Amino acid sequence: MLTDGIFAIVMTLLVLEIAVPQLTHSEVAAGELPKRLLELWPVIYSYALSFIILGFFWINHHDQFYYIKRADRVFVWITIFHLMFIAFIPFSTALLGEYTDQQISVVIYGINIAVAGFWAAVQWWYAAKNHRLIDPDLDPNFITIMSRRSVIGTIVYLIAAALSFFSTTVSLVLYIVIPIYYLIPARTNKPWLWFTRNK
Amino acid sequence: MLTDGIFAIVMTLLVLEIAVPQLTHSEVAAGELPKRLLELWPVIYSYALSFIILGFFWINHHDQFYYIKRADRVFVWITIFHLMFIAFIPFSTALLGEYTDQQISVVIYGINIAVAGFWAAVQWWYAAKNHRLIDPDLDPNFITIMSRRSVIGTIVYLIAAALSFFSTTVSLVLYIVIPIYYLIPARTNKPWLWFTRNK
Amino acid sequence: MLTDGIFAIVMTLLVLEIAVPQLTHSEVAAGELPKRLLELWPVIYSYALSFIILGFFWINHHDQFYYIKRADRVFVWITIFHLMFIAFIPFSTALLGEYTDQQISVVIYGINIAVAGFWAAVQWWYAAKNHRLIDPDLDPNFITIMSRRSVIGTIVYLIAAALSFFSTTVSLVLYIVIPIYYLIPARTNKPWLWFTRNK
Amino acid sequence: MLTDGIFAIVMTLLVLEIAVPQLTHSEVAAGELPKRLLELWPVIYSYALSFIILGFFWINHHDQFYYIKRADRVFVWITIFHLMFIAFIPFSTALLGEYTDQQISVVIYGINIAVAGFWAAVQWWYAAKNHRLIDPDLDPNFITIMSRRSVIGTIVYLIAAALSFFSTTVSLVLYIVIPIYYLIPARTNKPWLWFTRNK
Repeated sequence: MLTDGIFAIVMTLLVLEIAVPQLTHSEVAAGELPKRLLELWPVIYSYALSFIILGFFWINHHDQFYYIKRADRVFVWITIFHLMFIAFIPFSTALLGEYTDQQISVVIYGINIAVAGFWAAVQWWYAAKNHRLIDPDLDPNFITIMSRRSVIGTIVYLIAAALSFFSTTVSLVLYIVIPIYYLIPARTNKPWLWFTRNK
Repeated sequence: MLTDGIFAIVMTLLVLEIAVPQLTHSEVAAGELPKRLLELWPVIYSYALSFIILGFFWINHHDQFYYIKRADRVFVWITIFHLMFIAFIPFSTALLGEYTDQQISVVIYGINIAVAGFWAAVQWWYAAKNHRLIDPDLDPNFITIMSRRSVIGTIVYLIAAALSFFSTTVSLVLYIVIPIYYLIPARTNKPWLWFTRNK
Repeated sequence: MLTDGIFAIVMTLLVLEIAVPQLTHSEVAAGELPKRLLELWPVIYSYALSFIILGFFWINHHDQFYYIKRADRVFVWITIFHLMFIAFIPFSTALLGEYTDQQISVVIYGINIAVAGFWAAVQWWYAAKNHRLIDPDLDPNFITIMSRRSVIGTIVYLIAAALSFFSTTVSLVLYIVIPIYYLIPARTNKPWLWFTRNK
Repeated sequence: MLTDGIFAIVMTLLVLEIAVPQLTHSEVAAGELPKRLLELWPVIYSYALSFIILGFFWINHHDQFYYIKRADRVFVWITIFHLMFIAFIPFSTALLGEYTDQQISVVIYGINIAVAGFWAAVQWWYAAKNHRLIDPDLDPNFITIMSRRSVIGTIVYLIAAALSFFSTTVSLVLYIVIPIYYLIPARTNKPWLWFTRNK
């Protein structure tokens, strides 16, 4: 499937946005390099943040596809729109790394994540609606929990982005807190095993 | 298959052509960043346009490969030529984003898409000719519809590119209208399901 | 397998080495863009050349793996060295595109292709030696033809690179003639089908 | 699986960090190009070094996954953290290539490799602990050997990085010696075959 490839590529492209500092010989001789590397910390922070968020999207994607048994043309296009915003993350990440203290960067980053999450929610909603593309026996309560969970992520990121009007620091802290919260296993998770192989 | 990988990579490489604007400290302090980001809209438009066109090529590719049961050396080389023009799209996209109002960029972009489409049509024509690589039972009417459809896309993009001699805006509008038209399900589409999995 | 991914990525990374020309507003107004794009022809030539050579390496790789049934640690490392020189091709391609008339670029390009081909030959030789990793019933004559063929490609590229001491043009023409020669089906090719699928 | 894609992409992205030297026409005419290409040797050395280290990580990863039969959410996140440091290697490589004689680059490079190795060790330790995700029949002695081996790599790289306080050359030599040492087959390797296919 195209999706795994795109996640893998986006996750590795992130690093290309981290440029090695260009110093003159005299600056290097003056021992400026460590200082200049330390100044990269917002870029490194953005890298780590986006990598974790992409990991979360990727896991969410696999959770969904564990239950989705079929695909139709509409579904495929929803996925392509989802991927369009996933593939845009390296740009938002580079923008955030470069202008960490500017509200516009913080807002664009948050909206990018929220819209990517929105399309992930549409994907699930479209597949689960009337059990269109999922197993007919799948528990309706479970479907509702999955739906709610997708939507909550999107809403929380929008709120975090909106809070940048008061303080960009609050937004930046929330951006990292949300995926960490999601890291804690929840009821919707398949209880223990992610996959089992027979070899 | 090599193809899925190349589509995934091209789709994600597109974003690398969008450079984060480089501002001096005083420009940032003067609040120039939002304005400079707004000026990126032609680049963002090109990104979205190419992403959708690539999505369309990718779906078309899978539609074809649903019916193609075999491959020979000639066929593999046709695919490689198809991919050569697919892989060239990030350059044409960057050119269009940078010089959106220049006729030469609009023409090159249109020709790139048309030639990529041409090789996709050759691929189908070669595979379907005398049922060379497809199921012997496949309905000849269906084959004709598929062939015509591939060719139409190519011709329409060539016409759209040619219209840039009168107005580049007309071409740019057509470039986005064509894939949207194709988004509407047609008779040739497998009626409902794209794939079914048994797990 | 790692290999298909690396071929796909290298083939698409090639395009990143083609930079969109940067013109001032007055240069664009003076209609300089088409001229500057025409000046890109050596870069475009290098792109197409490398894409075709990589297509050829990829097909050769699949031809080999059609007969190779097992892998051991030594074999995996031979493959990694093969890929190291495949992954280096975007650099050699960019160098050739930038300094097409300089002998050093022409030599480096030719040696890169020759060394990549050399490791492909080692791969086959190691696998086929005493039928180590291939089907025990595989015809020895066939093995010899495959071995010879791999080695010839390497030698011919070395000769083409060496001829640059007389004329870089001769080398550049040979670089493109060799893969075209290989495009013509030969006795070693599996007669007709490349793969057959049952769906 | 995401992992193979990320290894393939990181290995090919490395080459993007090698920039083609930009010379003026007069410098080219003065025959400066070969000299400038020779000056790239630290960048080329870093490229080859990282390619081999990544090849080693990739093989280690496949060795582990040969025995791991299941995955849970914690395990997936350990893998994502492992990949985060794998995907960071192109930056460390570019830094080392640019400032080969600066201690800070040598230390960062060594720490990056050590941390990536650390997460690979955690991965194995988590999977093997109480046979959580591996075959219940797997020999405890074998598990211990695998665990020890992962940890040793990490420790040796940390020591090599620390030795840069005395001499960066010693570190750089050790960085390449360690993977070469690992290239020599050891007791923990599956005796001969890496995989067998039935076609």
